[in-house]
Amino acid sequence: MEILVYRSSERKITEGVPVEQLPELLQDQSAVIWVDMESPTEADEQVLLDVFNFHPLTVEDCRENRHYPKVEEFPGYIYFIVHGVTSDTSPDRFNTIELDGFLGSNYVITYHHASFRSIHNVRQLLRTSPIACQRGPAFLLHQILDQVVDYYSPVLDDFDDRIDQLEHEIFTLKQPNNAILAQIMDLKRSVLRLRRISTKQMDILLRMSRGEFDLIPDEMRPFYRDVYDHLVRVVDLSESYRDLISGSLEAYLSVVSNRMNEIMKVLTIFSAIMLPLTFIAGVYGMNFDNMPELRSRYGYYGTLGVMFVVAVGMLIFFWRRGWLGRGDRETPEG
Amino acid sequence: MEILVYRSSERKITEGVPVEQLPELLQDQSAVIWVDMESPTEADEQVLLDVFNFHPLTVEDCRENRHYPKVEEFPGYIYFIVHGVTSDTSPDRFNTIELDGFLGSNYVITYHHASFRSIHNVRQLLRTSPIACQRGPAFLLHQILDQVVDYYSPVLDDFDDRIDQLEHEIFTLKQPNNAILAQIMDLKRSVLRLRRISTKQMDILLRMSRGEFDLIPDEMRPFYRDVYDHLVRVVDLSESYRDLISGSLEAYLSVVSNRMNEIMKVLTIFSAIMLPLTFIAGVYGMNFDNMPELRSRYGYYGTLGVMFVVAVGMLIFFWRRGWLGRGDRETPEG
Amino acid sequence: MEILVYRSSERKITEGVPVEQLPELLQDQSAVIWVDMESPTEADEQVLLDVFNFHPLTVEDCRENRHYPKVEEFPGYIYFIVHGVTSDTSPDRFNTIELDGFLGSNYVITYHHASFRSIHNVRQLLRTSPIACQRGPAFLLHQILDQVVDYYSPVLDDFDDRIDQLEHEIFTLKQPNNAILAQIMDLKRSVLRLRRISTKQMDILLRMSRGEFDLIPDEMRPFYRDVYDHLVRVVDLSESYRDLISGSLEAYLSVVSNRMNEIMKVLTIFSAIMLPLTFIAGVYGMNFDNMPELRSRYGYYGTLGVMFVVAVGMLIFFWRRGWLGRGDRETPEG
Amino acid sequence: MEILVYRSSERKITEGVPVEQLPELLQDQSAVIWVDMESPTEADEQVLLDVFNFHPLTVEDCRENRHYPKVEEFPGYIYFIVHGVTSDTSPDRFNTIELDGFLGSNYVITYHHASFRSIHNVRQLLRTSPIACQRGPAFLLHQILDQVVDYYSPVLDDFDDRIDQLEHEIFTLKQPNNAILAQIMDLKRSVLRLRRISTKQMDILLRMSRGEFDLIPDEMRPFYRDVYDHLVRVVDLSESYRDLISGSLEAYLSVVSNRMNEIMKVLTIFSAIMLPLTFIAGVYGMNFDNMPELRSRYGYYGTLGVMFVVAVGMLIFFWRRGWLGRGDRETPEG
Amino acid sequence: MEILVYRSSERKITEGVPVEQLPELLQDQSAVIWVDMESPTEADEQVLLDVFNFHPLTVEDCRENRHYPKVEEFPGYIYFIVHGVTSDTSPDRFNTIELDGFLGSNYVITYHHASFRSIHNVRQLLRTSPIACQRGPAFLLHQILDQVVDYYSPVLDDFDDRIDQLEHEIFTLKQPNNAILAQIMDLKRSVLRLRRISTKQMDILLRMSRGEFDLIPDEMRPFYRDVYDHLVRVVDLSESYRDLISGSLEAYLSVVSNRMNEIMKVLTIFSAIMLPLTFIAGVYGMNFDNMPELRSRYGYYGTLGVMFVVAVGMLIFFWRRGWLGRGDRETPEG
Repeated sequence: MEILVYRSSERKITEGVPVEQLPELLQDQSAVIWVDMESPTEADEQVLLDVFNFHPLTVEDCRENRHYPKVEEFPGYIYFIVHGVTSDTSPDRFNTIELDGFLGSNYVITYHHASFRSIHNVRQLLRTSPIACQRGPAFLLHQILDQVVDYYSPVLDDFDDRIDQLEHEIFTLKQPNNAILAQIMDLKRSVLRLRRISTKQMDILLRMSRGEFDLIPDEMRPFYRDVYDHLVRVVDLSESYRDLISGSLEAYLSVVSNRMNEIMKVLTIFSAIMLPLTFIAGVYGMNFDNMPELRSRYGYYGTLGVMFVVAVGMLIFFWRRGWLGRGDRETPEG
Repeated sequence: MEILVYRSSERKITEGVPVEQLPELLQDQSAVIWVDMESPTEADEQVLLDVFNFHPLTVEDCRENRHYPKVEEFPGYIYFIVHGVTSDTSPDRFNTIELDGFLGSNYVITYHHASFRSIHNVRQLLRTSPIACQRGPAFLLHQILDQVVDYYSPVLDDFDDRIDQLEHEIFTLKQPNNAILAQIMDLKRSVLRLRRISTKQMDILLRMSRGEFDLIPDEMRPFYRDVYDHLVRVVDLSESYRDLISGSLEAYLSVVSNRMNEIMKVLTIFSAIMLPLTFIAGVYGMNFDNMPELRSRYGYYGTLGVMFVVAVGMLIFFWRRGWLGRGDRETPEG
Repeated sequence: MEILVYRSSERKITEGVPVEQLPELLQDQSAVIWVDMESPTEADEQVLLDVFNFHPLTVEDCRENRHYPKVEEFPGYIYFIVHGVTSDTSPDRFNTIELDGFLGSNYVITYHHASFRSIHNVRQLLRTSPIACQRGPAFLLHQILDQVVDYYSPVLDDFDDRIDQLEHEIFTLKQPNNAILAQIMDLKRSVLRLRRISTKQMDILLRMSRGEFDLIPDEMRPFYRDVYDHLVRVVDLSESYRDLISGSLEAYLSVVSNRMNEIMKVLTIFSAIMLPLTFIAGVYGMNFDNMPELRSRYGYYGTLGVMFVVAVGMLIFFWRRGWLGRGDRETPEG
Repeated sequence: MEILVYRSSERKITEGVPVEQLPELLQDQSAVIWVDMESPTEADEQVLLDVFNFHPLTVEDCRENRHYPKVEEFPGYIYFIVHGVTSDTSPDRFNTIELDGFLGSNYVITYHHASFRSIHNVRQLLRTSPIACQRGPAFLLHQILDQVVDYYSPVLDDFDDRIDQLEHEIFTLKQPNNAILAQIMDLKRSVLRLRRISTKQMDILLRMSRGEFDLIPDEMRPFYRDVYDHLVRVVDLSESYRDLISGSLEAYLSVVSNRMNEIMKVLTIFSAIMLPLTFIAGVYGMNFDNMPELRSRYGYYGTLGVMFVVAVGMLIFFWRRGWLGRGDRETPEG
Repeated sequence: MEILVYRSSERKITEGVPVEQLPELLQDQSAVIWVDMESPTEADEQVLLDVFNFHPLTVEDCRENRHYPKVEEFPGYIYFIVHGVTSDTSPDRFNTIELDGFLGSNYVITYHHASFRSIHNVRQLLRTSPIACQRGPAFLLHQILDQVVDYYSPVLDDFDDRIDQLEHEIFTLKQPNNAILAQIMDLKRSVLRLRRISTKQMDILLRMSRGEFDLIPDEMRPFYRDVYDHLVRVVDLSESYRDLISGSLEAYLSVVSNRMNEIMKVLTIFSAIMLPLTFIAGVYGMNFDNMPELRSRYGYYGTLGVMFVVAVGMLIFFWRRGWLGRGDRETPEG
């Protein structure tokens, strides 16, 4: 448990405040207290119950790790859950890490089960410009949320690249491929999860930015609205990614179907040329006594000529049907 | 009919209270009475009508067994129906059992047609810690509902496992298989039913947790909100399962289609190699008198050589088209 | 036109009241008057206009027969249209019959173009227990609506059976079959119609049960809510039937596609075994002078041996690919 | 510009009123003035601006011809756009014609760029029963809108017939056919357009019928509600047509796929019977010196017998698989 | 930074006002000031912060270039973002350019990162008719927005043409073609983007036109409603384009599938005719000693006759199945 205090009278930040000073500090309405709990012990959790008097259910919610983003108002404080993206998130596997927290009149509490990049960044920021705390805990919370949401941007760019790459793979596909299909499905799953999480997060920020909570003063609302706008963009892009991935699946199926067409055409062309020729050969392989052609001097060469004409005729027939090109190999825009 | 009474003055629970004492007990507003009816007799139902004065239609609703989750307010009591999962529920066949009930100012009544695990658990709990009744009937009802909803979690995990297993089966499928198709359809049906039931249940808990009913006091609302949050998770997961199952169907169809491609390729390769060779053999099987090659000393070996060249040429042709690999057998990430 | 009057003073029902007494009867607020018009004449309709003073447009709506369920309030009366299922309704062809009606402070009027089972049932009911009228016209109307909605239940069961049977047919299908496809489409059409009608009907009952109309007193609301609950179930089931039928179509298409796979496999196996054998036979059918094998004593038997080896090799090749089983014939769970 | 005036004092209609009298007429609140503009000149439009003082943007909207149905209230008048169906509308090409208009306290103005059937009909009607004007301009407008909506009915019937015919064509289809596909797409486009237009029109009538506009008095509301009900039916049918057309497309694709199955079966049966026979003939066409069968007296007939047995065996094999019937030709219900 | 001032006293426009006069000008409530910033410098942005006192977040939003259309009210001014179409927009690649802006009581500020056609047009317009400024800054803003929206019309027409052309290409397609598939997907992506942008823009105009902002006076609302109506049309058309493109994809897949049918038919017809003939030839190529037909004088000709009869029989068989036509080549309506 890391306790960090900013006193407006001193205009500087004190880190590593011992937990025993908390009750006294909370009396000081001019202070801004930030308690960050990373993988807290039971003793730490007891502080939440005893010193801050939070509702036991919220502390239990913190401990569990399977909740969706939400915000709830209690007398004297707000309890929220948001999700940050983990550093190992990829378009194929979208992972989030839960950040629980409380906002009171003079404190912000953050609670997470593992190291959290955004929290770390904000602490660094405060060390260099403690003045940011001057605007109160709601502004401090805004900065944390802003950092959390900022980490969604590179993930969105990754999705963009991944979908582009996937489409390229599909259109240059040599043969149907279960691996590509599995990739499409992984991507779809990730995007659906991204959309679900970010939609819920957007709802929370909407509620925070429209003045529903007294603990977030009116002059802070544009800042929360700014975070909200970023999430609108995340949700919107995730929806367009979903459409693109659906399109990729359709494209994949269609490309596979075109390939089937090509296979069938090859089979048909071979059969249609070879079968008649083999038939002709078969005719003159018959052992009838009375087959004048067999005795003719140029019968053999004439037959070869007929075979040649038949083969060329077939090729012309297929060429006129447009079957001899390899249109399905044409890459778009190339 | 099991009657259980908690008297705050005595701080202990009395079980097996005879039904005759009910009218008198109901006068005692400090008592918490829990009447549990398992497959009740007509006499038991008469108690609901005569002692509790419930609306005849609600008692009739209890008796019937085809209702959806709902909650209705009547003067002096709330009538509710929730659905618990049965112990034999599996992802292929999602079954629920109906729990009807009434909440009054000092009583909770539960009504079910078969043994109900959650009810049993709560009774055990009360025996060990009767103090739980201290908080009144609304808290007792919360504990029952909490238990009911808790039993959804293992079912969700089963779904998760089942879908994973299904996808594995699909991607390692040797040949199209109606059994897998039927499994997908069973799963889909179960998930749709799970979603329908849990959505309705979520609506009920939302109404209970936002202070719509006076019989659920304000300090109880966080507890109901907690159950509500669990149901939000159930609904959300059931929606993502539905998406996954739709994806599985698409994957299955695509894998089947890839297999067809493979079959066609085998056919085409065989035909395209064998037909020209057979044709060549046919030519030299003709019986023309004047076929100089037949008389040539090495005609036979030359012809065999030509056949070999043709066959190799065909193989190269298909190899360059990428048809000779077995790309559709590639398992993703394996 | 059948007029039936219940006078609370006499506690009995009088049937066959002549139309001339209507104006006088309507003055008696303690009476409950039920006017049932089956395929009414123009004179009957004139009564609606002259004696009851209904809006001409509503009487016109009664006469026409293409309206959707609706309810409209006019000064002094409610006008409603509901749809009952006809007795010849089947899952393949869902038919409804329109029931128009009016509810006033002391009368109910029902209007229908053909014999209506529910109306008939309620009249029978009243003859045996006239006391049902005691509760006023709103209760009488409730009983009619309850009967109308009750007739939906067997239809829903028919749908259930029909869909089960259809799925069985699909999974044991020997060959693609336009008749099954047409059945699926008929079913889908029926279900969509059922859903549309019952959704509109549900909306009407919702409005009736939530106290929107003064003519339906508060103590009647649980009864209307009961009918509403039944309709919720109808709508819900019709939605799940729609999902099941969509699933059936997907299953049908997939089964057909599996069958195609099987056909292709048979073709490929035959071709892949026969073409090489025929080629070998062709080689030794060539007429070259110098073919030492032809002169060899055991050349013929050796060749037959080679052919046997090739055929067996091919069978092993296909067996290892899993093509020789008939997996697509496997019935699920069997 | 056709001006038609009804004076309640005279109880008769005057047609062909010169435009110069308009300003004076508008003062007479007891008059009902109908100004109909068919392909108006600029001078006519100037009257709208100068005499009626309409907002310039609404007059501009009239002039342009690409607007959707809407209704807007301005001080002293309502401006509306509705769409009528053109006389050349067919299910394959659904066309509408725009009718702009204004409703004031004592006037109705209609504005259209081409001859408009409904307008013509209402004028005929007024000539025979001028009393219709007695009820004021809102009733006159109702009659116009009623006529406009009435012309949708035959179009809906045409759609019904067309879809029935299409389904018949699909199920008796001899071979896949791009023309049918194009018809399905034309129909779909028409239905989507019908639905879009009629939904917007329905919204307008809903607003008109629920008392939003003071210029439509309360006693007129049932009449507008009647037109609204008609539009509800149009929207509803257009939605069910959309479903039916989607079903037709699925049916078409499935029928085409069945036909493919049939083609493949024919190919497979031919190949599977002919290839083994040809192989046997090939064996005895080999030129080995030592082939005892060739010397046998009944070798030839024995071989023919074997071929016959193989062919019959194959037929039995396919007959038992159910491939010899032509199940896909079965027409439903026939 | 271009500053343009209209003073109602002078009734003329002054362009190129130096930035230093701004603070003084802003005091003059009768003036209309338009500040247009094209790719502004940091100094320019400082003016927004220092002279106009805009919220720093809005200025930051201006600078960034990835925002969606929105409108936000601040004390004393409105901040908005709209998107115009770029001049290089095509149906295959729909591009927009962001226009940020502020509306105050006597000023309009526009901010864009590149040359903006609509802004340029409005400036030209003002030079010729400065009177347009007479109506205040809200009217000036309306004119800008009107120009922005007007540029969507030609884009919609391009979409229309492109979809028509695409459908023509699909129905005259010679062979499956990945390029067409890629075109469909590009079009779909563009249309989805068009719809997303224009829907958001429509929401903004709706809010502006219904009197939500005091800075837009009531008499301006019809003008904003006019722009709103245009956007309704854009949204509506984009939705119908989306439907048409989905239809195109279905048509493409179906046409490809028909082509496959055709290929299979060709293969089947060839095989079914050639295989029996080859078999017959094979029979008489057998080397049995005792084959009387071989010795017959007309055996050869008889055999050729039989072959001819078989071939004709096959053709009749396929002709009666309707396989010999080329129905899939039929172009619709041709």
